[in-house]
Amino acid sequence: MSSPAESPAIITCKAAVAWGPGEPLLLEEVEVHPPKAMEIRIKVVCSSLCRSDVTQWESKAQPSLFPRIFGHEASGIVESVGEDVTEFEVGDHVLTVFIGECKSCKHCVSGKSNMCQNLGLERKGVMHTDQNTRFFIKGRPIYHYCAVSSFSEYTVVHSGCAVKVSKDAPMDRICLLSCGVSAGLGAAWKVANVSEGSTVVIFGLGTVGLSVAQAAKIRGASQIIGVDTDPQKFEKGKAFGVTSCINPDDCNEPIPQVIKRMTDGGADYSFECIGDTGAVTTALQSCDAWGVTVTLGVPKTNPDVSVHYSLLLSGRTLKGTLFGGWRPKSDLPSLVLQYLEKKILLEDLVTHDIAFDDINEAFSLMKEGKCLRCVIHV
Amino acid sequence: MSSPAESPAIITCKAAVAWGPGEPLLLEEVEVHPPKAMEIRIKVVCSSLCRSDVTQWESKAQPSLFPRIFGHEASGIVESVGEDVTEFEVGDHVLTVFIGECKSCKHCVSGKSNMCQNLGLERKGVMHTDQNTRFFIKGRPIYHYCAVSSFSEYTVVHSGCAVKVSKDAPMDRICLLSCGVSAGLGAAWKVANVSEGSTVVIFGLGTVGLSVAQAAKIRGASQIIGVDTDPQKFEKGKAFGVTSCINPDDCNEPIPQVIKRMTDGGADYSFECIGDTGAVTTALQSCDAWGVTVTLGVPKTNPDVSVHYSLLLSGRTLKGTLFGGWRPKSDLPSLVLQYLEKKILLEDLVTHDIAFDDINEAFSLMKEGKCLRCVIHV
Repeated sequence: MSSPAESPAIITCKAAVAWGPGEPLLLEEVEVHPPKAMEIRIKVVCSSLCRSDVTQWESKAQPSLFPRIFGHEASGIVESVGEDVTEFEVGDHVLTVFIGECKSCKHCVSGKSNMCQNLGLERKGVMHTDQNTRFFIKGRPIYHYCAVSSFSEYTVVHSGCAVKVSKDAPMDRICLLSCGVSAGLGAAWKVANVSEGSTVVIFGLGTVGLSVAQAAKIRGASQIIGVDTDPQKFEKGKAFGVTSCINPDDCNEPIPQVIKRMTDGGADYSFECIGDTGAVTTALQSCDAWGVTVTLGVPKTNPDVSVHYSLLLSGRTLKGTLFGGWRPKSDLPSLVLQYLEKKILLEDLVTHDIAFDDINEAFSLMKEGKCLRCVIHV
Repeated sequence: MSSPAESPAIITCKAAVAWGPGEPLLLEEVEVHPPKAMEIRIKVVCSSLCRSDVTQWESKAQPSLFPRIFGHEASGIVESVGEDVTEFEVGDHVLTVFIGECKSCKHCVSGKSNMCQNLGLERKGVMHTDQNTRFFIKGRPIYHYCAVSSFSEYTVVHSGCAVKVSKDAPMDRICLLSCGVSAGLGAAWKVANVSEGSTVVIFGLGTVGLSVAQAAKIRGASQIIGVDTDPQKFEKGKAFGVTSCINPDDCNEPIPQVIKRMTDGGADYSFECIGDTGAVTTALQSCDAWGVTVTLGVPKTNPDVSVHYSLLLSGRTLKGTLFGGWRPKSDLPSLVLQYLEKKILLEDLVTHDIAFDDINEAFSLMKEGKCLRCVIHV
């Protein structure tokens, strides 16, 4: 615990501020307030750009949450700690997480859920605890994103929304484990529990889909079919274990029929990594009678999945997951370790390393579907 | 194998024939042809009436499948066997099953599915093998139902659609294990895998729902909530382990809210035993973030289940099952044994024992919701 004399002061630093939906980010001087009780302030080292940063930045649904600092998939170093923080010390290396783990709510205690009731997905652009921001420009509050806001040289997060990791791990690569890659790995390992020799179909070969492929390959799946409308993704897919690719635009028959033919009746597992509820239905139809479908995506439109009852009655399972079912503090350090042991690939998912000043370039690349992960060196 | 000299002859016997959708059954003399290769002819002893018999009898969707003999939840004694049948002998006691187990198709071999590809749900009113009937009245074919047709003194089924059971088991009770009761037990034990101390919600307290309750009680569930619009079912529910009952007609707020309050956030497991896709959605909404919903019902109308993606992303699971996921030959004898060991209740589910001549009374009782199981003594 820090004594009053040592209390951290306001830091003035550079942050990429979105002033309105879809407007190019401006690099501004922001004031970052000290961490309050149970919070930590982090010097962000790297933050990779996730599709959901772009989706929320483009969305006109919550105009009142601008100006806002996006970014949530990040690595950094603890700069200061608030009162009552015992888990972290200045200098610790951390990953930020968009869903925290308080270890005391019913969900955390259950051991069955990663949907922390105290530090769940934050949607109001503020800190969980006091519903205020820690960023200001000339007294004007700047809203947070997912209670992380890592597109800033410094940020404040709840200590439950950061995970201490090995100092040996390269900050510019492990940031990928903060969200998308872990989501894919967990969907295959923890949620679907893909078995050796099984058949797997993945809808969408972005970073999340490729991470599912990687996880299925590690488990020894015999067939990993990737479905994507962008044939440029097929080459990369193969590097991550995809054994064959289907472009729906090239098919004269429904995708489930194609997949049933390729897998002698349907896949054992299918994963929806697009964020399209129609694709969830297709994924379920592509499974054999005992198949398991996992949806990882957040749809931009139609939020309802439609499932014909007969698909279920024959024994299929439909599941969903945020962050691959991982509980961040309990599970993330092990994924970092597996990366250090070269069991998990991250390098090939980084298509661009980008200087903080060029952050808008990363947003353009993601919007145009021309990247997997852009790592922004903050 | 029987030699030509011993070949069974045509039997003329009494059967309850439905001449048109919803028309009262007429007890007619029918000719039951001998079993063909891999088939057996059974002297039916008892056949309990299942809701799906009544639903299909009332349905105007397939008028060309009348005249028809319904009934599928039955016990009987093997009267004769067709060529190549080695599994059964004359005099064996059997249960019929509406989905068979060939033990050779991909699904049977997988060990992961009870949806036999050779002897699955038969929808055309004929035998699986030659697409013909074994029943005739003055040369006119009488259609089968589910390839069982047990509302006849004798019937012919594929040997894969019968299960040999202990001769110690009372025929007038174990017939219930042929379909509905096993479906409920399997949904809780095999499909959901209900754990000790968990909370369970059951939508619909008919025979299937009460069997889910019984199974959950045996597993040591701490709370078993029954939801039904008929308060007369609540008393019976308690006998099967239901700890509290909700009548939606008495509620001023949505059922999921009521259940979330009763279970501190939502149930661990929910079961839809009505045959209403809207209730499947409600069942999923009634679960906590890690909840498992199992649907067992065949809906009469709207066949599509609608699921908001956010219910899935938090970690919920939606599954379905026919016949509780049991593989009949592999699993049913053990359920009969558990009944003989008094581990499974059947008696309290039999509300009426009915003579064959009074079979229409059973249909009326089921239509009016005034029975659980009527056992028809054929």
